[in-house]
Amino acid sequence: MHESLAVVLVRARNPLNVGAVARAMQNFGVRDLRLVEVFEDSYREARSAVGAGIVLEQTRIFPSVADAVADCGLVLGTTTARRRELAQPLLELEQAALELEQQRTQRVALLFGSEKHGLTSADLDMCHALVRIRTAPEQPSMNLGQAAAVCLWELVGRQRAASAGRNQNSETRALSGQLDRLEGLLMDLLEAGGYLDRRVHAQTAATTEQELRRMLRRLHITEQDTSVLMGMVRKLLWKLRAGGEENTGSSSPPERAS
Amino acid sequence: MHESLAVVLVRARNPLNVGAVARAMQNFGVRDLRLVEVFEDSYREARSAVGAGIVLEQTRIFPSVADAVADCGLVLGTTTARRRELAQPLLELEQAALELEQQRTQRVALLFGSEKHGLTSADLDMCHALVRIRTAPEQPSMNLGQAAAVCLWELVGRQRAASAGRNQNSETRALSGQLDRLEGLLMDLLEAGGYLDRRVHAQTAATTEQELRRMLRRLHITEQDTSVLMGMVRKLLWKLRAGGEENTGSSSPPERAS
Repeated sequence: MHESLAVVLVRARNPLNVGAVARAMQNFGVRDLRLVEVFEDSYREARSAVGAGIVLEQTRIFPSVADAVADCGLVLGTTTARRRELAQPLLELEQAALELEQQRTQRVALLFGSEKHGLTSADLDMCHALVRIRTAPEQPSMNLGQAAAVCLWELVGRQRAASAGRNQNSETRALSGQLDRLEGLLMDLLEAGGYLDRRVHAQTAATTEQELRRMLRRLHITEQDTSVLMGMVRKLLWKLRAGGEENTGSSSPPERAS
Repeated sequence: MHESLAVVLVRARNPLNVGAVARAMQNFGVRDLRLVEVFEDSYREARSAVGAGIVLEQTRIFPSVADAVADCGLVLGTTTARRRELAQPLLELEQAALELEQQRTQRVALLFGSEKHGLTSADLDMCHALVRIRTAPEQPSMNLGQAAAVCLWELVGRQRAASAGRNQNSETRALSGQLDRLEGLLMDLLEAGGYLDRRVHAQTAATTEQELRRMLRRLHITEQDTSVLMGMVRKLLWKLRAGGEENTGSSSPPERAS
């Protein structure tokens, strides 16, 4: 469990918070910290703090959420779930812990947004599900370091009765990077099929892409599924593109012909 | 549950930590913060921080742990349980949460020690049980604000299955202040009985008092028990003192004679 969990901080501003998250990770034996759009000063300052420890030494910085979670089979975004209409399924933290137990073989990312604004809608679109820490309505927003500590306690620190023996037939979720590639192919396909036009109707295309991204993460797509789906999409795409030139419909795609 | 829990910070130094504990309390709807041997500056600084909120406004300061927990039926001390031989029963945090469910009618105190040294042995002697957050052996010590957040999540924030319907025949524990009075009477009794001499053998007497204090908290003494016990002790004490003057053994204590 500990080895398979990565904590991803997106746009964290306060070096004290970055340090606090790293400390909580060390408390619960979680090592893999990833920073996205980090303010370099925050990271440098956190890293130079006394007792920063091994987590901050090994921290990796990524240019985007997509890059940071590309190798993860399950991406969970934290939210207070106050205002927004949520496009992703919302799990209580206790449920997320159960979900995590099913995912022992794959890497899981736990995303935290900036102290002030949390995760953006675009960040959330990269998530399979959202996680909420149930808090008092009059003060729902938690301090970043404390929220991380509570999540890590529940997800990896806490002892769950009867946690062994489960997880027999757990599916192997597709990695986030595989879903991204599938999404790219599907967009190409939709464009090739005349469903959208990214140059002429960029805004409509972006909306479609967002819906697609969310859907792919809602569907519990396995690795096996992605390779099957990508095979299909590639074939259709070839067909459409070949058709655009020939427009006869007689030629088979190369995979089939050979 | 929320109304019955008091958080007690003993010798907290860092105003940021005091503020962080208060914030976690607000997140989980816990209002009763008590400070012991606080550094006045810490508290004033924490209180003047932006968004300090209602918890810090209502915080009370006590001269000693005994005063701070006098009205509590269950006193839980947090510890990393690393070095010391523990004289009190040690609960994992999950177990403490179950214990707390049995205590809905009485006030429960959760003690945290200073950032550097935790609770002292004398502080722990005021506790019925100790609570530990299970952490990685290479980094067992948690940040105060994060430890408080994790404890409050587990004790009041988390939803426990089948938590309703229990607690039928829960005992009413004696308040800590009642145990203190019982302890005082017992010490008087022991001294009157020649078991110890607080003036001549102060060190031995102090050791005995400590053993007594720990024992009283281990025994799950109810309110009913204390009044019975104190009645007994008072009677014995009267007898011993009266006997010291008369030494005949014939006179009955007044409670019995009347």
